[in-house]
Amino acid sequence: MSEVWVNGVPGDILSVADRSVQYGDGLFETLRVEQGRPLHLLRHLARLRAGCARLHIGGLAWDALCAEIGAASAHVDAAVLKVIITRGHGARGYGFAPGQQPTRILALSPLPQRSEDAATSGIRIRVCSTRLASQPALAGIKHLNRLEQVLARAEWQDPAISEGLMLDYAGSLVEGTMSNLFLVRGGRLMTPRLSECGVAGVMRSVILDCAARQGIPGDIVRLTLDDARDADEVFVSNSVIGIWPVAAIEGIGQYRVGGITRSLLAAAGSAADSDSDDWYSS
Amino acid sequence: MSEVWVNGVPGDILSVADRSVQYGDGLFETLRVEQGRPLHLLRHLARLRAGCARLHIGGLAWDALCAEIGAASAHVDAAVLKVIITRGHGARGYGFAPGQQPTRILALSPLPQRSEDAATSGIRIRVCSTRLASQPALAGIKHLNRLEQVLARAEWQDPAISEGLMLDYAGSLVEGTMSNLFLVRGGRLMTPRLSECGVAGVMRSVILDCAARQGIPGDIVRLTLDDARDADEVFVSNSVIGIWPVAAIEGIGQYRVGGITRSLLAAAGSAADSDSDDWYSS
Repeated sequence: MSEVWVNGVPGDILSVADRSVQYGDGLFETLRVEQGRPLHLLRHLARLRAGCARLHIGGLAWDALCAEIGAASAHVDAAVLKVIITRGHGARGYGFAPGQQPTRILALSPLPQRSEDAATSGIRIRVCSTRLASQPALAGIKHLNRLEQVLARAEWQDPAISEGLMLDYAGSLVEGTMSNLFLVRGGRLMTPRLSECGVAGVMRSVILDCAARQGIPGDIVRLTLDDARDADEVFVSNSVIGIWPVAAIEGIGQYRVGGITRSLLAAAGSAADSDSDDWYSS
Repeated sequence: MSEVWVNGVPGDILSVADRSVQYGDGLFETLRVEQGRPLHLLRHLARLRAGCARLHIGGLAWDALCAEIGAASAHVDAAVLKVIITRGHGARGYGFAPGQQPTRILALSPLPQRSEDAATSGIRIRVCSTRLASQPALAGIKHLNRLEQVLARAEWQDPAISEGLMLDYAGSLVEGTMSNLFLVRGGRLMTPRLSECGVAGVMRSVILDCAARQGIPGDIVRLTLDDARDADEVFVSNSVIGIWPVAAIEGIGQYRVGGITRSLLAAAGSAADSDSDDWYSS
């Protein structure tokens, strides 16, 4: 990593007593920074706040965190900013004291190298055999327990495959290892329900808001591989890549980069500021 | 923590790029050390090896790890030795290079302060509302994704309650937040199947072997709260505490410290060396 801060201090070291090391006890956000500006910051902070509430992580120094994100982003042309919030240092054991001070870790990295024509011709993806467990207590939030994604990503090495889709044990499509999934069929936009597992992506919420503004009917529903077979358009999204049209899901189907995908690609790219009224209520 | 080593070097700091911090990408073992000897070391190493295989963590320096465990334990009268193995440092993203060098973290702590009469009069425990997700890909191994246990342990503060039982979403009893569960009924020993979730404890395997040697019939089965209600004896186990008889499960039942519990308490306490022939085949 190029630049790292822990609790506002430059440096990339952490005590092994930190509960992220011991239990994966924390949350993270991955932001895209452009021209000094962390995109969709308020949505990221809202999800982080929801995650803190779910994990009973109190006492986060929000003002310091916001200042640190601002300082890390300033004068940066284009980068990825990963923010990790942990429950802080702990004694041995799962229990924690209520007054524990969370740890703030910020890491700035170069944007990943992507094929220039991913947005125009679409990417190839696959279906992973690693499934996501149903755990409503952790669904939706972006916590640090990510072994399922690690195992799924280890299933393929082929660099021509850009992402892997994950199902739950009931056979429902949930998401990609590092992205959310959208299908288009008959002019309707569909994305999986995430009440049992999965991460409710910031870019996913931006896209759903853009679709609503454009009058594109959108449904948050249970989806299966049959729905992917029948789809007219498929794309995946996250905060770093934005939208990636999908040209093919191995063994499932081939897709064109259709009108709704192109329209949302254009809208989501320019939605950085216009959505700041919506985030708080979502 | 009193004494910590990272990759054999004294010191308690780690890079935030370590995959334990980023994803909980690793495993741990908690050993009891007595008079310079890490108890049931071969069983702990066998479980660690099984965990490495499951998570595709290769290249662990086993010789160095064993030497470090030996050195950390030498001249120690009584302590807890926590061993954490992580996948090592990584670049951004879930993918990992096959040649990555795992990180070895050893931390020596004092034995927890326990009530002297826990072994004779039994402890009080409760049933947690936090449930364990079914995830066969991670069941049995002692990995670092422990948010479910953190949430369950946060459910109570009463120091008179020593442990919390966890069920899965199908209503099966699985384990305690930091221990395995045993029920005795009609002279038979029963402990939950761990094929969907839970940690296959080293002390659990010691107890099952002791029971077999003593001719106590033992079953690894699906158990529910009804089985707990009907039990004659209940106890929980882990490598640090050994066996804790259970006097009461809040709202479920009260139990006596019966003959099978007492017999296994005596046998498991002296089983440290006699089981070394069995571990490899289990």
